[in-house]
Amino acid sequence: MTSLLHIDSSPRFTSVSREISAEFARTWRKNNPESAYVYRDLAAEPVPHIDDAQIAVMHRLESEGVRDLAAARNAARPGAEADSWAVAWPLVEELLAADTIVLGVPMYNFSVPSTFKAWFDRVLIAPLIADPQTGVGPLTGKKVVVASARGGAYGPNTPRHDSDHQERYLRAALGMIGLAEDITFLHAEMTKSAHVPRLAQFKDIAVASYRAALDGARTHADRC
Amino acid sequence: MTSLLHIDSSPRFTSVSREISAEFARTWRKNNPESAYVYRDLAAEPVPHIDDAQIAVMHRLESEGVRDLAAARNAARPGAEADSWAVAWPLVEELLAADTIVLGVPMYNFSVPSTFKAWFDRVLIAPLIADPQTGVGPLTGKKVVVASARGGAYGPNTPRHDSDHQERYLRAALGMIGLAEDITFLHAEMTKSAHVPRLAQFKDIAVASYRAALDGARTHADRC
Repeated sequence: MTSLLHIDSSPRFTSVSREISAEFARTWRKNNPESAYVYRDLAAEPVPHIDDAQIAVMHRLESEGVRDLAAARNAARPGAEADSWAVAWPLVEELLAADTIVLGVPMYNFSVPSTFKAWFDRVLIAPLIADPQTGVGPLTGKKVVVASARGGAYGPNTPRHDSDHQERYLRAALGMIGLAEDITFLHAEMTKSAHVPRLAQFKDIAVASYRAALDGARTHADRC
Repeated sequence: MTSLLHIDSSPRFTSVSREISAEFARTWRKNNPESAYVYRDLAAEPVPHIDDAQIAVMHRLESEGVRDLAAARNAARPGAEADSWAVAWPLVEELLAADTIVLGVPMYNFSVPSTFKAWFDRVLIAPLIADPQTGVGPLTGKKVVVASARGGAYGPNTPRHDSDHQERYLRAALGMIGLAEDITFLHAEMTKSAHVPRLAQFKDIAVASYRAALDGARTHADRC
């Protein structure tokens, strides 16, 4: 039995990244009608920002070198720590339970939406980090698809490639927890050409890029 | 008359980035006792994540090419747009009013805290973007100091330099609105050496880096 975790983070109701992640999820669920499917909308229900109490627990896990997940689950002290850990732990369980993860993550101001960062900072706990010796961690082996929309073009050989702190950040951050080994980025680019006059000349690129991302979503879902 | 805007974003109560930004602010205020000082703590009072309504206003400003700030201030339609714009606009005014800005921004998982990103995505509105022709915008000329704490070392020639999506992201993002021309980063690095056993060997580096950042805070405040 396989399972899919589908997370969206666009602040927009009508959103290109949501369309692409939905296309992936639709195809995957059609192919896996009996499988588990969990959906989380970080814009509709934001995860509270990480707080001092969760960091206190995480520092203790790090100083004691705790890598065992059952021990980590019970590591919070009663009170503020336990309250904060109760926010983080279900997010950790969701990641652990999924075989395939589709993340709807548009680029906002060169990086990821603040709701996505809030989720990630909650979920990244030391026992999920891949072992520096072996490169293997509890999340190793999962397939990740990132459904992305970007206002401009940020690929290699574009003038703004150096300002890409979305895909490159995600590769680094997800890589820490073993989630960048089987990762696919589906970028719909130049979305701002729809409303910014000086970018109107790039509408064809935007349309082609959007169609390729939707096609990619179906193709990758068929391969899972 | 000069003025200082001081923003902290660390989720920790006892925080290295807060100590460095506070050292800068203390020195600056001693040197400028008659001047305006505004403090904002993004962890204690998080700015709500950007929403669909603010983006609708911003898209309209972009399509119409509105660069005039007085026009932008009144650009929201009654209802959800006006409510959302009322969250963003005071943040814009704070930036406009400051001559010097000190930002306490630790690195979290290779990037900035989610509270900082939430603030930035609210405040970055099109009329603040530097004119692509002249490179000048309404915020050009302000001095920015970033008080930073990072768990490891991320400078040039370190193994993790490529994972730095904090300083390099901030240079790109703040650069969009003309705030990266006179910018100084004060990094206290290797802060994790205090509690992570395998990093204990780097405690001397951490102490030296912390002292240099505090010294830098005083020196730069004296130069304002």
